[in-house]
Amino acid sequence: MAGTNPSLPKGTRDFIPSEMVKRHYIFDTICNAFRLFGYLPIETPAMENLTTLLGKYGEEGDKLIFRILNSGDVFSKLRKLEVSNPEYLSLLNQISAKGLRYDLTVPFARFVVQHRNEIIFPFKRYQIQPVWRADRPQKGRYREFYQCDADIIGSDSLLSEAELIKIIDIVFDKIKVPVSIRLNNRKILAGVIEVIGESTKLTEITTALDKFDKTGKQSVIDELTEKGIKKSSMNKLLPVFELKGSVTEKMKFLDDYLAGSEMGRKGLEELKILFDITAHYEIINDVQFDLTLARGLNYYTGAIIEVNARNILIGSLCGGGRYDDLTGIFGLPGVSGVGISFGADRMYDVLEQLNLFPEKAETGTRVLFINFGEDKVVQLIPYINSLRDASINTEIYPDAVKIKKQMSYANSNHIAFVALVGEDEISKGLITLKNMQSGEQKQLTPEEVISELKPGNRISSMSEN
Amino acid sequence: MAGTNPSLPKGTRDFIPSEMVKRHYIFDTICNAFRLFGYLPIETPAMENLTTLLGKYGEEGDKLIFRILNSGDVFSKLRKLEVSNPEYLSLLNQISAKGLRYDLTVPFARFVVQHRNEIIFPFKRYQIQPVWRADRPQKGRYREFYQCDADIIGSDSLLSEAELIKIIDIVFDKIKVPVSIRLNNRKILAGVIEVIGESTKLTEITTALDKFDKTGKQSVIDELTEKGIKKSSMNKLLPVFELKGSVTEKMKFLDDYLAGSEMGRKGLEELKILFDITAHYEIINDVQFDLTLARGLNYYTGAIIEVNARNILIGSLCGGGRYDDLTGIFGLPGVSGVGISFGADRMYDVLEQLNLFPEKAETGTRVLFINFGEDKVVQLIPYINSLRDASINTEIYPDAVKIKKQMSYANSNHIAFVALVGEDEISKGLITLKNMQSGEQKQLTPEEVISELKPGNRISSMSEN
Repeated sequence: MAGTNPSLPKGTRDFIPSEMVKRHYIFDTICNAFRLFGYLPIETPAMENLTTLLGKYGEEGDKLIFRILNSGDVFSKLRKLEVSNPEYLSLLNQISAKGLRYDLTVPFARFVVQHRNEIIFPFKRYQIQPVWRADRPQKGRYREFYQCDADIIGSDSLLSEAELIKIIDIVFDKIKVPVSIRLNNRKILAGVIEVIGESTKLTEITTALDKFDKTGKQSVIDELTEKGIKKSSMNKLLPVFELKGSVTEKMKFLDDYLAGSEMGRKGLEELKILFDITAHYEIINDVQFDLTLARGLNYYTGAIIEVNARNILIGSLCGGGRYDDLTGIFGLPGVSGVGISFGADRMYDVLEQLNLFPEKAETGTRVLFINFGEDKVVQLIPYINSLRDASINTEIYPDAVKIKKQMSYANSNHIAFVALVGEDEISKGLITLKNMQSGEQKQLTPEEVISELKPGNRISSMSEN
Repeated sequence: MAGTNPSLPKGTRDFIPSEMVKRHYIFDTICNAFRLFGYLPIETPAMENLTTLLGKYGEEGDKLIFRILNSGDVFSKLRKLEVSNPEYLSLLNQISAKGLRYDLTVPFARFVVQHRNEIIFPFKRYQIQPVWRADRPQKGRYREFYQCDADIIGSDSLLSEAELIKIIDIVFDKIKVPVSIRLNNRKILAGVIEVIGESTKLTEITTALDKFDKTGKQSVIDELTEKGIKKSSMNKLLPVFELKGSVTEKMKFLDDYLAGSEMGRKGLEELKILFDITAHYEIINDVQFDLTLARGLNYYTGAIIEVNARNILIGSLCGGGRYDDLTGIFGLPGVSGVGISFGADRMYDVLEQLNLFPEKAETGTRVLFINFGEDKVVQLIPYINSLRDASINTEIYPDAVKIKKQMSYANSNHIAFVALVGEDEISKGLITLKNMQSGEQKQLTPEEVISELKPGNRISSMSEN
């Protein structure tokens, strides 16, 4: 088998140490913000039963779920069936009962129902785990990627929406990426559709509208016409989505426009309150009311949120919304929740493109002891022990190769100090400490080395706390 | 679909917040030890190509790999084949090309070969990620569990083995679980087998010996007889494995016993050096030389290590060893490495059984603001903003429900302080801060609240640093 050229499944990636440090910078920033607002961590398994996953993401979504083959002899089952059976999905279900997590929201809903007697409501959880989608891989789209979700479930207070907006604001302020936070409310969309007389076409209209920004007005008109929206409805619809002006102006327009729809008035009222509360949170980033924002997922019933970078053209970096009955499908109806999800991989790409990752050491190692030979090396171990006892990340080069090679290892790994202990130092009980940046060398006692290296001795991390 | 009783695939688990805190205590302890010794983090994807995974874990291992169904119409492929084909594995390979990670070692070998031009040798990596095995679930054995691995590759120095033993010692000392660290060397085993004249039976003999402790002498004799080991060989073999005494005594015996095997002498020499170096590392736990330790995996070629708890009967908590050619199967021969793997899930079970998890707050939230009503709540937001600006994890109860219910939420979530701001406090610009443990209440300015809550305000974690 020698010579096999190893590779990875398409759409998946390895992360080398320098990338891991950058990824942790993003995860830590998000995680610290979640904790700052009282969200608690949970984890769910990578595999879920297909009964949990299927039917939750639409027909397209179901196709993108990675299915796991049942263990044992799956073919004996198939042999008994008719393999030419056109019931493709039914056949698939005979040989696979599990799938990989497609997002964190549905497993969370399953979790809440399953653990409803162990958790305290309102339950605020965060979850940072990978998800898998059998999507066609392309630039910035992977088959394994991380989602970073926070949800609060068991309360319908709009304070929660406001706090989530503040979390978004803190995260993007911390990583120095200016964003637009766009808000809308599903009830307003439902109201608009009621007013124009196309209540049965909610999904068609929201799906078309979601593309308003990208494809433009004519394309949306064409799509809606094709989907059977009447011309008279279209004429009533367009002014709403071409609406310009301040949040107050838009709301004033809608006050009249939605007067005939109870659902619409309710959505407008919620959005007004949300803007009022949010004003108290000193949001730094731009918060907009965007009537064209629809978000694809059917389970949203109230506020919807989407976040885009202002200085760079890339898909949304974060999104979320209010759902009134997510756990209903698993047998626990009437529990309202709201959540957001950060796309850590896309945030990584933005920080990389804008060169915004903080300059910091790539490795956690503070000092490398040079190896002068097998016989001498054991005499260094007591020094190394005492540095490590003082929580100083310390390495010893494992082989007694040329000093130059050992120095080059320290340089390549961005190790700040090198310790040289030759015969002269051993006889004096001293350590020669070399600062790899300045080139400065000092002979110090082991205690002095500890106090020299101790300050600023932090676990390799770019985050400030 | 309402009423569906949600469940998880067997052998998999959710983790609620209180469990997550305990799990992070273990992961952080291991991760800090790895960093203290200069190991750097990497991650690999959950899915690997089956060409990477198959044939690396023995026939039994191959069967335990979770296979992922290819996307698209896998059945059209099958239809073209003969479904009654007895070539079960060949059929399986027609419909699945990917599998879930079975351990971290093989993906690491693949990683090293694939990234050999990006990484610096000797390469010290650690990796903490879940693995999946289609094993029959039972108490303490899961189908998804975490491995915590550290490996150094590109050096054959025995210093590395000694440092890994020290890492093991530090980790178990930190979590206060006394362990026995058992060492052996595969070359010694090969030497023994050479001496007794059964060189072709290495796998059979090591597999039987691995059970020596569990099943006893007679059972091992029976198994070996069945496998065709000659009686004369058995007579020579048994004294070795029944050998008692100190490390020095055992080595003295082997000096004579292995005199006729070059391989055996080499292994003994390595083990002697390893014990000599290790002596300098001030190991607190018991380190033994155990000739019956074999470890199943075929790729080990030198030192082998296994760690068991001393006060509790449970499988090994950590294991590892030296491999001389792991990357050879992927086309990069002649690179020696050594590594260890901690079983975090089993360590969790041990700490739980021995009641050794530190008593600490379960939640990261330091203070909960009581919600006295929608109109009043916005007046609290500036206070909450300033606490969060000071990195104090702060929550506000989202709904204006009865105070008792809000207090009970704080208690259940182990939130240390509750802030009460009624009309009286608002008019005075003060906050009533209640210590939930002592019951003590004080009226303080917002600045005083910050300085009261700031010290000890650490992200929820049981680890000390």
